[in-house]
Amino acid sequence: MHHQNIKITVLLFVLLEVSLLFGQQKPNIVFILSDDAGYADFGFQGSTEFKTPELDKLAKKSVKFTQAYVSAAVCGPSRAGMLTGQYQQKFGFEENNVPGYMSSSGLLGDQMGLPTNQLTIADYLKKQGYTTALFGKWHMGNADLFHPTKRGFDEFYGFRGGSRSYLPYDKNNVLTKNEDRLEKGFGNYLEHKGYLTDKLANEAISFINKNKKTPFFIYLSFNAVHTPMEATKEDLKYFSHLTGKRKTLAAMTLAMDRAIGTVLDELKKQGLDKNTLVVFTNDNGGPSDANQSNNNPLSGTKANHLEGGIRVPFLMSWPGKLKKNTTYNYPISTLDLFPTFLNVANGNSSKLKQLDGVDLMPYVKGENKERPHKVLFWKKENRAAIRNMDWKLIRFPDRPAELYNIKKDISEVHNLAYQYPKKVKELYKQLFAWELTLERPLWQLRREFEGYAAKRMDAYKKTNTK
Amino acid sequence: MHHQNIKITVLLFVLLEVSLLFGQQKPNIVFILSDDAGYADFGFQGSTEFKTPELDKLAKKSVKFTQAYVSAAVCGPSRAGMLTGQYQQKFGFEENNVPGYMSSSGLLGDQMGLPTNQLTIADYLKKQGYTTALFGKWHMGNADLFHPTKRGFDEFYGFRGGSRSYLPYDKNNVLTKNEDRLEKGFGNYLEHKGYLTDKLANEAISFINKNKKTPFFIYLSFNAVHTPMEATKEDLKYFSHLTGKRKTLAAMTLAMDRAIGTVLDELKKQGLDKNTLVVFTNDNGGPSDANQSNNNPLSGTKANHLEGGIRVPFLMSWPGKLKKNTTYNYPISTLDLFPTFLNVANGNSSKLKQLDGVDLMPYVKGENKERPHKVLFWKKENRAAIRNMDWKLIRFPDRPAELYNIKKDISEVHNLAYQYPKKVKELYKQLFAWELTLERPLWQLRREFEGYAAKRMDAYKKTNTK
Repeated sequence: MHHQNIKITVLLFVLLEVSLLFGQQKPNIVFILSDDAGYADFGFQGSTEFKTPELDKLAKKSVKFTQAYVSAAVCGPSRAGMLTGQYQQKFGFEENNVPGYMSSSGLLGDQMGLPTNQLTIADYLKKQGYTTALFGKWHMGNADLFHPTKRGFDEFYGFRGGSRSYLPYDKNNVLTKNEDRLEKGFGNYLEHKGYLTDKLANEAISFINKNKKTPFFIYLSFNAVHTPMEATKEDLKYFSHLTGKRKTLAAMTLAMDRAIGTVLDELKKQGLDKNTLVVFTNDNGGPSDANQSNNNPLSGTKANHLEGGIRVPFLMSWPGKLKKNTTYNYPISTLDLFPTFLNVANGNSSKLKQLDGVDLMPYVKGENKERPHKVLFWKKENRAAIRNMDWKLIRFPDRPAELYNIKKDISEVHNLAYQYPKKVKELYKQLFAWELTLERPLWQLRREFEGYAAKRMDAYKKTNTK
Repeated sequence: MHHQNIKITVLLFVLLEVSLLFGQQKPNIVFILSDDAGYADFGFQGSTEFKTPELDKLAKKSVKFTQAYVSAAVCGPSRAGMLTGQYQQKFGFEENNVPGYMSSSGLLGDQMGLPTNQLTIADYLKKQGYTTALFGKWHMGNADLFHPTKRGFDEFYGFRGGSRSYLPYDKNNVLTKNEDRLEKGFGNYLEHKGYLTDKLANEAISFINKNKKTPFFIYLSFNAVHTPMEATKEDLKYFSHLTGKRKTLAAMTLAMDRAIGTVLDELKKQGLDKNTLVVFTNDNGGPSDANQSNNNPLSGTKANHLEGGIRVPFLMSWPGKLKKNTTYNYPISTLDLFPTFLNVANGNSSKLKQLDGVDLMPYVKGENKERPHKVLFWKKENRAAIRNMDWKLIRFPDRPAELYNIKKDISEVHNLAYQYPKKVKELYKQLFAWELTLERPLWQLRREFEGYAAKRMDAYKKTNTK
């Protein structure tokens, strides 16, 4: 071997060592997402009816965001926004993909999904040397071409659809949609045993065990507490003070909380807790009608643009790096997760001009005292909303637009549109200017569902609206 | 031959004779449509600048409708509504099909067209024994499957697209879009000589000559006075009092008027004028910006829902059957043409539950003194309008909805939305309920064009809006 070659080999070894050392310094990222939970249905959010001891413990170690927003009031678009860091309407992912409920115009069935020209945060974290895994619900398309293992995730254990039974499908619990089948990796379908919420956590724990020496990204995407309403007898016992769906929801939430606890315990057990950024949030507001979730003090539900549809619980913990048991009170968005995760992984989000989210770290650490977002937008077809500072305009297809001061009126009961017509006009213009930058929807639900959405909102709107 | 058979044969002959006699009594129908003309740009509409002696002569023999509406503010959807008698949004024809300007979501290029499961008035009139012909602009799809000869028209001379040169395409006047080529029948492409407006009339005259013994339906669909702005030197001479595009438009209008005159003269020459129902109207409001058309006293232009975008000149003549030189003042729609034509052809429009138009005859004859339509709707995406009796609500994506009393304020300058909030809410609900019955658009223009539409409306909105 020539001296020259030896030198190069030594250099490569040194670089590898530096890289490994550096890799170990990169924090693990554990992103835990619940599904359809109510804003008020956690101990750390003030619930006295529900029990979430593990999340409450996490909250004490976390920054709690009091004004965290999702980018859509339903699961699919909201997750598309989180995964790409962009307003999902920019690439036509404006509505839920629910085969069987769609209009005949546009993409149909399994062809609806996160466009393959969009990279996910998992794609980017892989480039940063992360091992990436998704456990649970995908909902970004049922066709093989949209599969998590083709969208940046090294490992996948879960289901492709939007919701499924917590119990194994068998002759007594019949599978009706292919996308509900449990799958490990690509195409390996095998139903689990026991209660799915526990199983997802167990899979995450195995993954942590296997991957503790490299930085990893876990997207722990519970279907809990989405319908169907299925809880174990053991968990139901804790809620004798509740009845009906509300009781079942409480038990489902407790199971999820316990499962989250086991994952967080495993991080500690492996000595990884100090170097792991943990985020917990929820994909959209609680569908009070479907699962009796409680969005108090917010008006509205899943699928509408009142706060109850788009504001979610949000915790972020990173021991030693972020102050624990604090709150952050300016509005943030789940679009911010992408740049925040990328940057803690030593990436550079400022190079990605497509991003609508911002890196939250400088804000949370107090290095930047401005608002992360002066303006946030929401849109599904004609229905849309804009929040500019503390003003919020909601535009409807079936009634005049409403204006609220969110700071003074968190429950959106005092419509100020008639008192501030100039503000209404100003926000209308700003909303429309944003809309002009968007793509048309790639698919759309049948029109009748817009009617249901309006009724659903009215049913759960606080009643003393002016 | 048995006596029984002889009797049946005789009976069949008698029936045949009655049928032939009856067939001859069915009136011919000549439906003349101009393109992008201004509301005020005809003598019979009060113009002193333009010369339309032939149409003015027709007006004196006609019922003139003072509140005739099209179902869309642009060509394609408006024509789809006329041809099917239905709100075209019911089958997803909500926007113009302009290859090259479309969003990537939905149908593209030549695949955009009037869905083949929709039958046209020509299909129905053929069933009633009519010989049917289209001369001029089609704009219901460029692909072969949408061709006029497959949509109820026995004869076609014209072009598949939305506008074209009035002069032949050749090396000096280069064809840029295939759908602009002149075609006779199916697939026989050959450019004309001379000025296209004259040629279309000449083709109609030949058709009348050939088909005078059977009832016929002519859809004389001028591209005049759509852009490009091309007039003959001879016609320009009459308008020394005008300049620029306005002068050219006047000359183009005069050419169309003269061409219409030659067709009406031919009907008379052939002795068919007494038994021919003639309708003249325009496909949408004048695009004042593109061709300097004049929509006075109406506000707005083509492509918006102010009266200037959707109210059109409308004449109906049927000697001996309808009173001449009269006006009909209740709102009607071009959706009414389908049932009106079908019923005069001895069809029965009441059997067709899909129709949104009504047979105008009982109204025009004074047999029914009610309004033909208490409510009319317009919609393009978020933008929409409803007219209920004399109230009109216009819903916008970029500003609060506006309310007008059309009877008292034909120019829509006094927005009453703030004075009548209850009326606004009521009309919003009614509009939305209608929208829920519609299909999603099969294709959509790129979003940026919605921004242009708003600017275009503002540019030509009467300025003293409250």
